[in-house]
Amino acid sequence: MEGRIADGGSARDRAVPPAPLRVAVIGAGYWGPNLARNFRASAAWELASICDLDLERAQRVADRVGGAPVDSDLAAVLADPTIDAVAIATPARTHHAIALAALEAGKHVMVEKPLADTRARGLEMVEAARSRGLVLMADHTYCYTPAVLKIRELIEQGVLGDILFVDSVRINLGLVQPDVDVFWDLAPHDLSIMDFVLPGGLDVVSVSAHGSDPLGTGKSCVGYLAMPLGCGAMAHIHVNWLSPTKIRQMVIGGTERTLVWDDLNPQQRVSVYDRGVDIASVSRGTAPDPRAARVSYRLGDTWAPALPEHEALAGVVTELAAAIGEHRAPRTDGEAGLRVLSVLEAATASLAAAGAPQPARERALEEGAAR
Amino acid sequence: MEGRIADGGSARDRAVPPAPLRVAVIGAGYWGPNLARNFRASAAWELASICDLDLERAQRVADRVGGAPVDSDLAAVLADPTIDAVAIATPARTHHAIALAALEAGKHVMVEKPLADTRARGLEMVEAARSRGLVLMADHTYCYTPAVLKIRELIEQGVLGDILFVDSVRINLGLVQPDVDVFWDLAPHDLSIMDFVLPGGLDVVSVSAHGSDPLGTGKSCVGYLAMPLGCGAMAHIHVNWLSPTKIRQMVIGGTERTLVWDDLNPQQRVSVYDRGVDIASVSRGTAPDPRAARVSYRLGDTWAPALPEHEALAGVVTELAAAIGEHRAPRTDGEAGLRVLSVLEAATASLAAAGAPQPARERALEEGAAR
Amino acid sequence: MEGRIADGGSARDRAVPPAPLRVAVIGAGYWGPNLARNFRASAAWELASICDLDLERAQRVADRVGGAPVDSDLAAVLADPTIDAVAIATPARTHHAIALAALEAGKHVMVEKPLADTRARGLEMVEAARSRGLVLMADHTYCYTPAVLKIRELIEQGVLGDILFVDSVRINLGLVQPDVDVFWDLAPHDLSIMDFVLPGGLDVVSVSAHGSDPLGTGKSCVGYLAMPLGCGAMAHIHVNWLSPTKIRQMVIGGTERTLVWDDLNPQQRVSVYDRGVDIASVSRGTAPDPRAARVSYRLGDTWAPALPEHEALAGVVTELAAAIGEHRAPRTDGEAGLRVLSVLEAATASLAAAGAPQPARERALEEGAAR
Amino acid sequence: MEGRIADGGSARDRAVPPAPLRVAVIGAGYWGPNLARNFRASAAWELASICDLDLERAQRVADRVGGAPVDSDLAAVLADPTIDAVAIATPARTHHAIALAALEAGKHVMVEKPLADTRARGLEMVEAARSRGLVLMADHTYCYTPAVLKIRELIEQGVLGDILFVDSVRINLGLVQPDVDVFWDLAPHDLSIMDFVLPGGLDVVSVSAHGSDPLGTGKSCVGYLAMPLGCGAMAHIHVNWLSPTKIRQMVIGGTERTLVWDDLNPQQRVSVYDRGVDIASVSRGTAPDPRAARVSYRLGDTWAPALPEHEALAGVVTELAAAIGEHRAPRTDGEAGLRVLSVLEAATASLAAAGAPQPARERALEEGAAR
Repeated sequence: MEGRIADGGSARDRAVPPAPLRVAVIGAGYWGPNLARNFRASAAWELASICDLDLERAQRVADRVGGAPVDSDLAAVLADPTIDAVAIATPARTHHAIALAALEAGKHVMVEKPLADTRARGLEMVEAARSRGLVLMADHTYCYTPAVLKIRELIEQGVLGDILFVDSVRINLGLVQPDVDVFWDLAPHDLSIMDFVLPGGLDVVSVSAHGSDPLGTGKSCVGYLAMPLGCGAMAHIHVNWLSPTKIRQMVIGGTERTLVWDDLNPQQRVSVYDRGVDIASVSRGTAPDPRAARVSYRLGDTWAPALPEHEALAGVVTELAAAIGEHRAPRTDGEAGLRVLSVLEAATASLAAAGAPQPARERALEEGAAR
Repeated sequence: MEGRIADGGSARDRAVPPAPLRVAVIGAGYWGPNLARNFRASAAWELASICDLDLERAQRVADRVGGAPVDSDLAAVLADPTIDAVAIATPARTHHAIALAALEAGKHVMVEKPLADTRARGLEMVEAARSRGLVLMADHTYCYTPAVLKIRELIEQGVLGDILFVDSVRINLGLVQPDVDVFWDLAPHDLSIMDFVLPGGLDVVSVSAHGSDPLGTGKSCVGYLAMPLGCGAMAHIHVNWLSPTKIRQMVIGGTERTLVWDDLNPQQRVSVYDRGVDIASVSRGTAPDPRAARVSYRLGDTWAPALPEHEALAGVVTELAAAIGEHRAPRTDGEAGLRVLSVLEAATASLAAAGAPQPARERALEEGAAR
Repeated sequence: MEGRIADGGSARDRAVPPAPLRVAVIGAGYWGPNLARNFRASAAWELASICDLDLERAQRVADRVGGAPVDSDLAAVLADPTIDAVAIATPARTHHAIALAALEAGKHVMVEKPLADTRARGLEMVEAARSRGLVLMADHTYCYTPAVLKIRELIEQGVLGDILFVDSVRINLGLVQPDVDVFWDLAPHDLSIMDFVLPGGLDVVSVSAHGSDPLGTGKSCVGYLAMPLGCGAMAHIHVNWLSPTKIRQMVIGGTERTLVWDDLNPQQRVSVYDRGVDIASVSRGTAPDPRAARVSYRLGDTWAPALPEHEALAGVVTELAAAIGEHRAPRTDGEAGLRVLSVLEAATASLAAAGAPQPARERALEEGAAR
Repeated sequence: MEGRIADGGSARDRAVPPAPLRVAVIGAGYWGPNLARNFRASAAWELASICDLDLERAQRVADRVGGAPVDSDLAAVLADPTIDAVAIATPARTHHAIALAALEAGKHVMVEKPLADTRARGLEMVEAARSRGLVLMADHTYCYTPAVLKIRELIEQGVLGDILFVDSVRINLGLVQPDVDVFWDLAPHDLSIMDFVLPGGLDVVSVSAHGSDPLGTGKSCVGYLAMPLGCGAMAHIHVNWLSPTKIRQMVIGGTERTLVWDDLNPQQRVSVYDRGVDIASVSRGTAPDPRAARVSYRLGDTWAPALPEHEALAGVVTELAAAIGEHRAPRTDGEAGLRVLSVLEAATASLAAAGAPQPARERALEEGAAR
């Protein structure tokens, strides 16, 4: 092994292209196999270990992805100096401990969503990575799908104009999770996507959460989040484990155009509608007499951009390698994970307050100030 | 005319079938022509007058529906003893005055939704009708569509089991109304339907309303209502004037089955899914340790009942005639209209309180007690 | 009335705008009421008569459209010198006799599809109109829908490139007609649309018809038409009275783009796909070795043009008035009706020949030469 | 070989469960990897070899499926007495030679669709298998999908009544194949499914094929097959490589109900419509005066059976093992493959005859008699 290190190290120093980075996947449950398969298939990575307390389970994953070393001892993996990074796909409540141990061992870290089970723990992870100059990446997989990448690009280019509202629906007959409610299970997807595509990121002023547990499972199975954004737009999320039909749809309304992302329509996932309401010659929000505002309607064309086909996780592992190689933050970094946690915690607080709105932005601002 | 009155009166006394009732339609704007057409086509009714301040407009409607007397003087219409009922299709803020005048003149009254522009005024209308023994009907048209009638029937028969959640979406690129917000414009549809189909009617515990006016029109154009129901279920409504796509969908989840009503799919408007989550051998809400609840999934068949085709308004005018003839309350009576107004007022209060939940049920209960 | 003639005539000579033309609608069955309503609503027309053997039926239509004279005597209507045109909405087998009588009486004529029940009779109608300098119009209503008008415009502008194939499906649970098969009942729609939008009109080389009468009704209830076109493209039509689902879809493939018209999707009726197969640097059909042809794929954007909303029949009656006023052939003239009949007759011949292809173009050409 | 048989036999006799059979997958191109993966995952099979002329390609597949021996020498594989069966996933023109060699070597054989590139060669394969008592299976994968298995079951149970028509559409932007036209590429799917689900199998009386090669590729890219069936129903297939939209839909109309299979709608793949046309009190096809037939309409419910989720190929490899173990013909045997080839050859003949119908059944009957 040492020989390999020397070789590997020197190879990486002089090589063009660089020798692949070595990664260990921690957790061989639901998501780990997907990570393992993509690291294995990537030219930027060498899959150095699949680590799970259940060694047999790790071995089954290794077999399925074309072979890889397996391990049941996390400490040994972290002690291996040839390993550059770890990808954590264990239950959320274990993210904090594993990530901190990995960062202490000098490893770059990628963590499955959500980043941690509390914002405070997520913040410790972010700070630990920052202080050591290591990359901490949130595996916000959806942000690397062709559809979301295109949405971000369109918004950046101003195709939608100013954002007026965002409405996201993510419902299906889902697994009632043993340890988290429907908000913590599903909403991280919608929140991380909003964080990725909106011009100012996920700038939530307050969160009103309305949940329902009609089956008496002890946690919300149906949930709604209403979130005024700093830009004046309203964001809303509907998550639901009890719906017999599956819907994955996000509508992003803008002053110029409105975009509909229907992720279950492979023939037309993203549609841009040049339809909308115009308030003629009245500047937004400042009409002296709003009743006098001259409303008109645009009924223009619809346009659906062609999307390339590629697996999102391939983009995730490539971005992790690039961020490490270029000593920069990845596109979905720990801060992005923190913004998602801020909203989730505000949602939990709102639930406890019978739906009363809870501030979300303040927390982030305070922390920013405290830094 | 007088001769006719005498004839008509006596005819009605002895006739089998009874002579048709005579109705005046008040207001020849958007909805009035539909009412006029259906009264004109109904064997139970004689269209006695189309009344509008703009006599030419009234005449155009009369021409289109095959002819009818027109009038621009409401007082004269109400003074006509041959007229049995009036159907009011004027702006909401005028419902109260016209309805009270008509009730005072001894006419039965049907009012376009919403019943009135405030709950207090609606209550006065209900009480005026009650004290005079006259019918006051809310024209909750959707309740007379084949789809909603079938939904009510299925729920009554227990096909869905206990209701777990109701989620309604009513969005499209809509007319920004000059005098009402999106809640008062669109949500009466969803609320009146829920009132009609839910076993206990619209029994809303509290209302949290989240609205957004991103274009600065002076009123909410995007709105969400979260409403815990007395039965423990959660009801939610999304109304939106700014959506380029049109959605009219209501999902009603039950312990046995879940129903999806997609009103824009004429080939399969109502689908009943025998899919769901079961909490095995644990009574609802009383599990000692909810984590231990044994969750299982049903993935059964889907079934879409055939629906007859008929125009809802034909059912509305028939029901009005039947209620008058049988001296009973119509299916959608003034009380139903009041329940809708209670929620709308609570929504307005919640909007003013930045989304904090506002009680809705208490008001209704207090009034019930005060009677 | 005579006074009116004098006034009307002179008014029309000097007036700007011209006095409306006067039309009689012949036949008050299924389609006549729609014609009557649109003539009644058009500023270019005065509805002079609704004529039906069943006078009561005529009166009911007159009532519904806001009033019009009615008649049960066709001869009297044709003898009325104030009537400029007749619109025939009677069973197809009576079109020929009524149209010839009307043309002889000097009336312009519009005929519901199909133009006649045989091509020979249709030809007599065309020649009678031509010899008298009168307008003969086929009421190919679909050609005046916003969707078809847009499709014609796009093809004219070259947006699709050369046409490669046309596939049309028109199926639903339909009325089994007493006197015509599914080809003569439904295919005139598809054929008249193709005639309207294709660059060279409906230039069908041969027709292979495959029909099936599985219920023993004595006529085809399921039918397919395969029709090589003069331009090298293939056109195909599927018509079906026995399908429980309704489909109205036409795909027009071109070298540059492909258009899909889904008439039952009001939110996106017409979609233009910039996707296709390219045969690189090989001129069409002349590759020395087709196996060597370099095939590549375009996976470009999709685009759905906004369509105005208007009733097609309003465009039909306007076009009839314009053609009369401008002494020109209407967009869908008798010749267009004849081209449709040529294909229908070839289809009937192919059916009798067990599906063997039958020439369609030759007939048209022969006639052209014979003229 | 004998030694192995004895061993294998005795081992299998006493084993519970029997020792897995050993299979070699021949061809590591498009389909081979799927076969390899499913054999590897099946308890009934041991993946004994992945054989491809390109050994690296074989190795890549072996890696991906969790490891398997690889080989580039077909003869060596066939000479291996421990191998019970081969699964052939090579180009169609090579099926015949490889299958005959394998059968001569005593191996059971499964062949990717189509069974062979001509019917005559397919027949040789069938006879070679029969004479040696070996299993010859056509890998008609679609027949093992949950949807098709359910359709077969419903038809067997009489849910549809007598079959009236079958209409299948399989269109998308497809690979223009170098050596086969669109009929031979895509229609085997539709034909094998019809063979599987129709009560009498694929009993085609004649075939009319209409093809179009508008891009000059040297082969049909757009194709239609009209096929009267022995039972009196009409079957029709539309296959198309040039459609920008993807459709996979089969409609099976019956006297009692009609079934629609929309394979691209995962939420409701199979729908059964209790709608249709009834010919009252007139026996099918024998009405003395069909015009007098009393037609009525049923507008009943729609029903969508729940479908289990499993990969079709898992069912394929299980069926192959079962057929071998039980010394019986598999559900999709060589004869089924021959019936598909009969229709494809008749289609090619019809194309050459400009679409004239060509007999298909006679060929099969002759052969049956000649046996």
